[in-house]
Amino acid sequence: MKVKLLTIGDEILIGQTVDTNSAYIAQKLNGIGLEVEEIISIADRSETIIQALQNSISETDVLITTGGLGPTNDDVTKLALCEFLDTELILDEFVLKELEERFAKQGRELNKLNRNQTLLPKKSIALRNILGTAPGIWTEFQNTIIINLPGVPFEMKNLMKTEVLPRLQQKFNLPFVVHRFLSVSDYPESELAIALEGWENNLPQHLHFAYLPERNKIKLRITGIGKVKSVMEKEIDAEVEKLVPLIGDRLDSTTRDTIEIILGEKLKDLNLSIATAESCTGGNISFLLTSAPGSSEYFKGGIVSYATEVKERVLGVSNELIQKHTVVSSEVAEAMAKGVREHLQTDVGVSTTGVAGPAKGEDGKEVGTIWIGIADKNSVTSVKYFFPYLEREDFIAQVSRLALQNVFKFLNGKI
Amino acid sequence: MKVKLLTIGDEILIGQTVDTNSAYIAQKLNGIGLEVEEIISIADRSETIIQALQNSISETDVLITTGGLGPTNDDVTKLALCEFLDTELILDEFVLKELEERFAKQGRELNKLNRNQTLLPKKSIALRNILGTAPGIWTEFQNTIIINLPGVPFEMKNLMKTEVLPRLQQKFNLPFVVHRFLSVSDYPESELAIALEGWENNLPQHLHFAYLPERNKIKLRITGIGKVKSVMEKEIDAEVEKLVPLIGDRLDSTTRDTIEIILGEKLKDLNLSIATAESCTGGNISFLLTSAPGSSEYFKGGIVSYATEVKERVLGVSNELIQKHTVVSSEVAEAMAKGVREHLQTDVGVSTTGVAGPAKGEDGKEVGTIWIGIADKNSVTSVKYFFPYLEREDFIAQVSRLALQNVFKFLNGKI
Repeated sequence: MKVKLLTIGDEILIGQTVDTNSAYIAQKLNGIGLEVEEIISIADRSETIIQALQNSISETDVLITTGGLGPTNDDVTKLALCEFLDTELILDEFVLKELEERFAKQGRELNKLNRNQTLLPKKSIALRNILGTAPGIWTEFQNTIIINLPGVPFEMKNLMKTEVLPRLQQKFNLPFVVHRFLSVSDYPESELAIALEGWENNLPQHLHFAYLPERNKIKLRITGIGKVKSVMEKEIDAEVEKLVPLIGDRLDSTTRDTIEIILGEKLKDLNLSIATAESCTGGNISFLLTSAPGSSEYFKGGIVSYATEVKERVLGVSNELIQKHTVVSSEVAEAMAKGVREHLQTDVGVSTTGVAGPAKGEDGKEVGTIWIGIADKNSVTSVKYFFPYLEREDFIAQVSRLALQNVFKFLNGKI
Repeated sequence: MKVKLLTIGDEILIGQTVDTNSAYIAQKLNGIGLEVEEIISIADRSETIIQALQNSISETDVLITTGGLGPTNDDVTKLALCEFLDTELILDEFVLKELEERFAKQGRELNKLNRNQTLLPKKSIALRNILGTAPGIWTEFQNTIIINLPGVPFEMKNLMKTEVLPRLQQKFNLPFVVHRFLSVSDYPESELAIALEGWENNLPQHLHFAYLPERNKIKLRITGIGKVKSVMEKEIDAEVEKLVPLIGDRLDSTTRDTIEIILGEKLKDLNLSIATAESCTGGNISFLLTSAPGSSEYFKGGIVSYATEVKERVLGVSNELIQKHTVVSSEVAEAMAKGVREHLQTDVGVSTTGVAGPAKGEDGKEVGTIWIGIADKNSVTSVKYFFPYLEREDFIAQVSRLALQNVFKFLNGKI
């Protein structure tokens, strides 16, 4: 089974929009055993689209496009498809009726451009889009299924779930793809690779192994494809069992879970609650914590103390301490962590104070300086990092994950 | 000038990683007048890479690849490039020396895999990567410049800024690409397109116009390419002047600024400070506010009141009010907004309380229900939305932007 994705729209090519649609579609297809072989992003010009359809179709079983189904002049996917299929547009009565009813409920009437959206290529069928005016399009042409979805992410996602995935599952008898992820900390990639060399060379041909480096961390992925899911899973489990002792105590977790989920499980196990006091991370740590399922069991809330006066008044950091050590200091980070756990009455408090840039801190501290503070009822500690070369958003993302990793280490008695 | 990007790595194809690198590279290239024609993501297998190089090279002036330069077995870009160029790997003495010095400072020695990273194809030159062990690679082959960058985002970004962009600028005498963005609210796309039809049909050939729909909002983009930037800008300005009265009062802003920047400017103009009280958005609104440059002038901080007890104790929302109206209610949203502006002593307070899902709220409220509260010293108001079909992360992103949009409307006396 060969699957390709085709993303249509200038906004991707000029970098205005990050192509999150393809990742979503690829993940969902993976879940039903379909592997994406190639993702292509092209401009929303008719001849470019037709050319891409011609190039992609010959060796492809499923081609999914996103974008260019809207009502405006720069939405040319449907016309390009029509020309490619050498067919004409005809009215889909069912789509029209459904849309008229939906508009009537809102007291609106279809205009000419909405009406155009109910026209479909003669050889195609409509995929019902309850969240927008453009139906998805499903065309079986030669040996390829061409699926056109709107580029608006929430419409695309709903169409994937309600229309595309069920139809593909029904159509094909699919193998399963199983991924297993391991996360390793503080292990240089090249040294890890040498440690795992012998194991990797003995891996069965149908299992694939990959290193995915992040800062201070490497994700390892083992992937297998096969007809019987349980057999595949057992095989991969056996490999993981061999792998774990080779990595030693720098192994973080044998699941694909993110640090917010790993920490959340730990907090649940220990029956501890947590609160955040954030300065330069601006609420991102709190946001990460809430993104873990069931986080309301342990996450009570947080204080974003962007202004120094909020650090003083709400978190109870003394003005003398700030004057003596500056806002970006070990002492203030620790006082913030203590302050927030008292103010929000939690077992653990975690804090950040640093300079995310682009400008230097008020006290002249270098961009990239960060202190993370952690407190529980018995102790308080802090950790310093310095990332002068990271852009602001990367800095914040990095520091937020490190803060949670350090809380995890703290709870394990490792700092 | 034809530019293509080639993203190498299975993690993109299985949807584990969103391809943010391409958006970054495309944006930076746009800034020096280079337009990306196509972005292709492929697997990290040697034959696939060689095939993609062969397919891409013929009509391309610049081809930038990311990924596959690491030290491990699944990093095959360099070997594939070598095979494609029909050349051999030779040691780059300068890269080796620089790396040895860097390792020595950390008390480490190069292992065999690190040493392998200092080998480069004979026809290529190294691009200095101070943040990692893999140098970027610059190769001039036939009529194409092939540039290989590591896939780790912070390494790639640094290489783009310090090596790739300056070299490309030096190499070519480039035209300028100018984009102008307008944002329109509450205007159905098809109706807007009809209103702008006449104007669009009269647009000069070398200007390109696009609709970028989001929920409740449409971004419009006018793009021009030309040798003299100031001439292009004047031409686009003239078109914007014609466009503005056609859109009427549903026009948000004639800049490409995001709502956090637009609201930030408004708060600065009015000399007002703001604080956030967030429940289901978990700190995301606060994070958005801090991402605007200069936000410390007006953003004092926020409270993430994930637990009901924090709403009561820290924000001063009374237990009776919660019992009577439930946590997800107009009354509680308004009490939170009032509470946070008092607690953090700001002019304006904005709050959210809702059910992001996937599970229903404690009080049985439907997933997708959200109340946004806004208070200043004279008044308090609240707005309700219901987005039952959005996935959790989209819901939070959507609600966060809407909260800021509503504060903007509130400050303009429109709600």
